[in-house]
Amino acid sequence: VNVSDPGVGDDVDVQAAIRDATYRALCRHGYHETTIQHIADEFEKSKSLLYYHYENKHELLTDFLRHQLDELAERMTVAGTDPYDDLLTLVDRIVPVPMDDEATRFRRVLLEIRAAAPHDESHRELVRRSDTIIRSAFADVIRRGVTAGRFDPAVDPEEAAEFVHTTLLGTMIRGVSLDDPETVARTRETLVTYLDRYLLVD
Amino acid sequence: VNVSDPGVGDDVDVQAAIRDATYRALCRHGYHETTIQHIADEFEKSKSLLYYHYENKHELLTDFLRHQLDELAERMTVAGTDPYDDLLTLVDRIVPVPMDDEATRFRRVLLEIRAAAPHDESHRELVRRSDTIIRSAFADVIRRGVTAGRFDPAVDPEEAAEFVHTTLLGTMIRGVSLDDPETVARTRETLVTYLDRYLLVD
Repeated sequence: VNVSDPGVGDDVDVQAAIRDATYRALCRHGYHETTIQHIADEFEKSKSLLYYHYENKHELLTDFLRHQLDELAERMTVAGTDPYDDLLTLVDRIVPVPMDDEATRFRRVLLEIRAAAPHDESHRELVRRSDTIIRSAFADVIRRGVTAGRFDPAVDPEEAAEFVHTTLLGTMIRGVSLDDPETVARTRETLVTYLDRYLLVD
Repeated sequence: VNVSDPGVGDDVDVQAAIRDATYRALCRHGYHETTIQHIADEFEKSKSLLYYHYENKHELLTDFLRHQLDELAERMTVAGTDPYDDLLTLVDRIVPVPMDDEATRFRRVLLEIRAAAPHDESHRELVRRSDTIIRSAFADVIRRGVTAGRFDPAVDPEEAAEFVHTTLLGTMIRGVSLDDPETVARTRETLVTYLDRYLLVD
């Protein structure tokens, strides 16, 4: 591999492969423990490529997380026909039930990043952007539901979105920190019951 | 100070002073960064006393956190006259508004412990016990309210308690990870609005 002059297409492929390796390393070792070596262990290509693309672990992880935010924004884009169905789809994307092992482990990484946020402005910025993406997606779908006459016109979409997001965050965190899928399923169900009662026009 | 044979009364005082120092060190440096030296720096007495009482940092922190759970259980004991007022008191004890700087910093420590829980059974046990204390307190007060005819008899106290706890956890975590007191206040208010609508008999 000619690392001194990779083609643009190769570059994109390599960066995607590095991100995949980073994802697997983070799921396996957690945010604080993951080292460049762990990422290299998950990477099928030469470790020198990691250093060609990234100066250090911090730069690599920052790029990885920015890319995750782009993916989150895509995942939170729904445009089905029924706002209520779309709302449930969004709930499911944040807190899928059942949550598979990889999804659980990656959410633990996100929780570690959130817990580290008070000590690091770049983490706070990531958390802030992630919260904004999620909250905006919920607000949009609730606003659509109100406009369509499907949801109660008295509902404030921003306020409802914030509450849904906060409750889902609590649900996700309880579930992944204690490894308790039953609590996740039960709490998510209670949230949906609340949404039915609060949002839907009788 | 005769550290080889302290009286029992002294022992209790010393342990309380060590816990106070631990609390201050944790608030200042965060859970992962706090060292025995940081705790010693906050401790007015001889550092040798720390080692007389505790083998190492892990033992010291474990004892500190167990004691915090006892204090949590006391704080979550309310027996006012009105179940609805008691419910709001409990909400306020978990997520006080406004939250002062020390309360915010200590909640960040709790978030770090929760994020570390997947990797450590002793942390999971602490988180589980803490969750049980909080959930039981909410369930008790909601059950009292149902019995007293103050809350809707259709409400399931356990389910409602779990939902309130989860939402408060999400509120607390968003607020302390982003240092955003306005979000905390707004989300707590939305929760209280929900409680009014969901629990109270018209």
